Amino acid sequence: MAKEGIHTRADNYAQWYLDIVEQADLAEPSGVVRGAMVIKPTGYAVWEAIQRGLDQRIKATGHVNAYFPLFIPQSFLQKEAEHVEGFAPEVAVVTHAGGKELEEPYVVRPTSEAIIGHTYARWIQSWRDLPILINQWANVVRWELRPRPFLRTTEFLWQEGHTAHATEAEAETETLRILHEVYADFVENVMAIPLYRGLKSRRETFAGALRTYAIEAMMQDGRALQAGTSHNLGQNFARAFEITYQTPSNEREYVWTTSWGASTRLIGGLIMVHSDDDGLVLPPRLAPIQVVVVPIFKNDSERATVMAAIERITAPWQGKLAFKIDDRDHLSPGFKFNEWELKGVPVRVEVGPKDVQKDSVAIARRDVPGREGKSFVPQAGLTERLVALLDEIQQSLFDRALAYRNQRTVDVRTYEELAAAVEQGFARAYWDGNDADEARIQEELKATIRVIPFDQPETAGTCVLTGRETTKQVLFARSY
Amino acid sequence: MAKEGIHTRADNYAQWYLDIVEQADLAEPSGVVRGAMVIKPTGYAVWEAIQRGLDQRIKATGHVNAYFPLFIPQSFLQKEAEHVEGFAPEVAVVTHAGGKELEEPYVVRPTSEAIIGHTYARWIQSWRDLPILINQWANVVRWELRPRPFLRTTEFLWQEGHTAHATEAEAETETLRILHEVYADFVENVMAIPLYRGLKSRRETFAGALRTYAIEAMMQDGRALQAGTSHNLGQNFARAFEITYQTPSNEREYVWTTSWGASTRLIGGLIMVHSDDDGLVLPPRLAPIQVVVVPIFKNDSERATVMAAIERITAPWQGKLAFKIDDRDHLSPGFKFNEWELKGVPVRVEVGPKDVQKDSVAIARRDVPGREGKSFVPQAGLTERLVALLDEIQQSLFDRALAYRNQRTVDVRTYEELAAAVEQGFARAYWDGNDADEARIQEELKATIRVIPFDQPETAGTCVLTGRETTKQVLFARSY
Repeated sequence: MAKEGIHTRADNYAQWYLDIVEQADLAEPSGVVRGAMVIKPTGYAVWEAIQRGLDQRIKATGHVNAYFPLFIPQSFLQKEAEHVEGFAPEVAVVTHAGGKELEEPYVVRPTSEAIIGHTYARWIQSWRDLPILINQWANVVRWELRPRPFLRTTEFLWQEGHTAHATEAEAETETLRILHEVYADFVENVMAIPLYRGLKSRRETFAGALRTYAIEAMMQDGRALQAGTSHNLGQNFARAFEITYQTPSNEREYVWTTSWGASTRLIGGLIMVHSDDDGLVLPPRLAPIQVVVVPIFKNDSERATVMAAIERITAPWQGKLAFKIDDRDHLSPGFKFNEWELKGVPVRVEVGPKDVQKDSVAIARRDVPGREGKSFVPQAGLTERLVALLDEIQQSLFDRALAYRNQRTVDVRTYEELAAAVEQGFARAYWDGNDADEARIQEELKATIRVIPFDQPETAGTCVLTGRETTKQVLFARSY
Repeated sequence: MAKEGIHTRADNYAQWYLDIVEQADLAEPSGVVRGAMVIKPTGYAVWEAIQRGLDQRIKATGHVNAYFPLFIPQSFLQKEAEHVEGFAPEVAVVTHAGGKELEEPYVVRPTSEAIIGHTYARWIQSWRDLPILINQWANVVRWELRPRPFLRTTEFLWQEGHTAHATEAEAETETLRILHEVYADFVENVMAIPLYRGLKSRRETFAGALRTYAIEAMMQDGRALQAGTSHNLGQNFARAFEITYQTPSNEREYVWTTSWGASTRLIGGLIMVHSDDDGLVLPPRLAPIQVVVVPIFKNDSERATVMAAIERITAPWQGKLAFKIDDRDHLSPGFKFNEWELKGVPVRVEVGPKDVQKDSVAIARRDVPGREGKSFVPQAGLTERLVALLDEIQQSLFDRALAYRNQRTVDVRTYEELAAAVEQGFARAYWDGNDADEARIQEELKATIRVIPFDQPETAGTCVLTGRETTKQVLFARSY
């Protein structure tokens, strides 16, 4: 282990992930409800930052929030044929309530297309009622056989957007706008996670959708994590739930719907992209605490001097930096350094009696461990320096993740190259296979098509499996 | 009816309430899930304002948010004897999940003392781990036999705080701080709802609590609505879930816990305190839209003039007022006036060609319907005038509700006076009865003790039922 309580990534990556979740105090298994976790205050503060960033963008693109019931009549799930096939095996079912057996059981929502589709059928009469642009923040339940905190839990928190439109083109525009302007913008610019964006293959398309678009990120073990999906549902749910509208020329048409979601899973991705063997690493724009100040003193007199200096130094930070002064008396500076490193606070400022004398402070960057990330700077101009440093760290985390990802994304021409590539990262390959071919690769290599990227080559090439010529490239990877 | 689609309060108060919920577009019954509602975007925006206000105060008093599982093992509910008695009859039960019958059924949380108590037992070891000050935003399910939107729904949204302390005194301080600094401060100062604050009688105490404190508001039909409760749970849950800590002197003690909640029910109270026969009335500090601007024009040329003026007039409002320009072309000004009245927007600003000529606008106050609430004012200084007007409306709504409540709160000396008083409002009475006496009054008069107010008289008096002398006064009322 690199640090007490944390396995190294090299030693045991899966265990390293669990160790970070535990040691950074993000979450823990509930212990009594299968596959459910308790999101602890430190983890929930990260989720609140994600909520704020997504909610802002969801509203800026014209959406409003609403709330629909947790329970869905079991029969509703069956109205859209592919949808029931996709979700029926993993639902939790309420059979009794108020001391009686229910006439029709309810499923606890695994996603809300069904109950919302039913509601929209009531709300939408005319073309003037369109578009409907609604988002919901909610908990959902999907019975997972192999739960892992944040990545796969039987209950998770998410937002799910559900929109209805008059035309196919409008629905498609909406689906893509969410992917780019909400999900990718937030995940790249705030979470500092570089993304591949594109279309899902038919096998990986959401149950009931026409097309699913996704953002995919590479974890430090080379595996992919789907960080958000946006579905063009076509008229499938409109037909299943009879959602129709009257056109300006008095005809009755089915609406076109979309749905899109991002969840607490993002926290799993955050951990696996940036963190190291010393603990969590948080990008400054997402960090609930950006700067932690640790006073260093040996006695009451030093304490008084140092705390007075800290008060003076941090006064201009109000409203400019999210900071915390760790003035706990019963803990040593070393203990505090370790704790804030574990919890991923981007910058630590140390102030001791000598710093007070010299009008300086010590600064330590979380993203550059050890001596290299430490510097001694004057107190004058500190606020501006810290603001600039946080920007630099934000950019540096993104650049580092991007370089790592690009280095591990390999263009492959043969099946052997594909097999080797997915052992350590993403494989970019020409592809002209069908569903069965894709299934074969999944079985043999444990890799799936993560996306058919929007960026496609200008020249044709040879399908990595069938040898047929094609202009289509896809990204293969093993995934979470 | 006073207005299309709304019964008057005088005519049919219960139906008036439902009409407001429907016509102001706040919520609607799901139609398919018993007692569950869909909170529509207009209603959810009000809930978001309530969430913001409460969350801010919850954090300002030192609490952090976290998230605990939706499902609770059925056996957990039984660990605290009064708790199970209180909640077992109204829980929804999950018996199947992932295609299989569960070994032990889960209940869907009706409240989270049990699952959180179980978790705290794991988190708390030493006195250094205390206090734990955590809040959760969540949905809960309680099977209601006679559901009404916002007031009683089988699923509702709320926040539930759960804290653990080393001493009884600390837990008591916490319980009262939440009541005053979080709930009463928000409900009185932002929602403009005057409150009675006090202790609940033993019969009305939360299942499992030592003491319950509550804020109670009077609705326009004279009935009481409990708007928030804060429970000192004593050591009851600590004993049930074995939550102990090591004291500084190395002894093992049970912790003292509290819990407290406020829910979407507040929206029901909001409606019934301020609204009138024309629709919803929102206090400015809570209103998602404080000012709506309606352009008035007859042709394209007038439209251009008016819209240009509106752009100029509203430019300085950014960041000072939450406003909306209703520039929908296919609707008449009259239709728009009606819609924004129904939705309770505090101030309407009308701008027509004549206003543009005269450098004036027309202002209409939602809280003063008709001519009396309308004025014509110069465009110069409009921003400051509107900001001041919103403050005036906020105060006026509170004062009006306070006067109404005080007028309908009657000091009663005899049983007959008590019986008459609860027909139209609250009855303040000396009380020395026991639980059975209280039950008798509930059965005979349909009224209960809402609170034993913190404000108690300095002199003794005669119990309204038993005739015994006592210094304790209580407030009786019929309640929602």
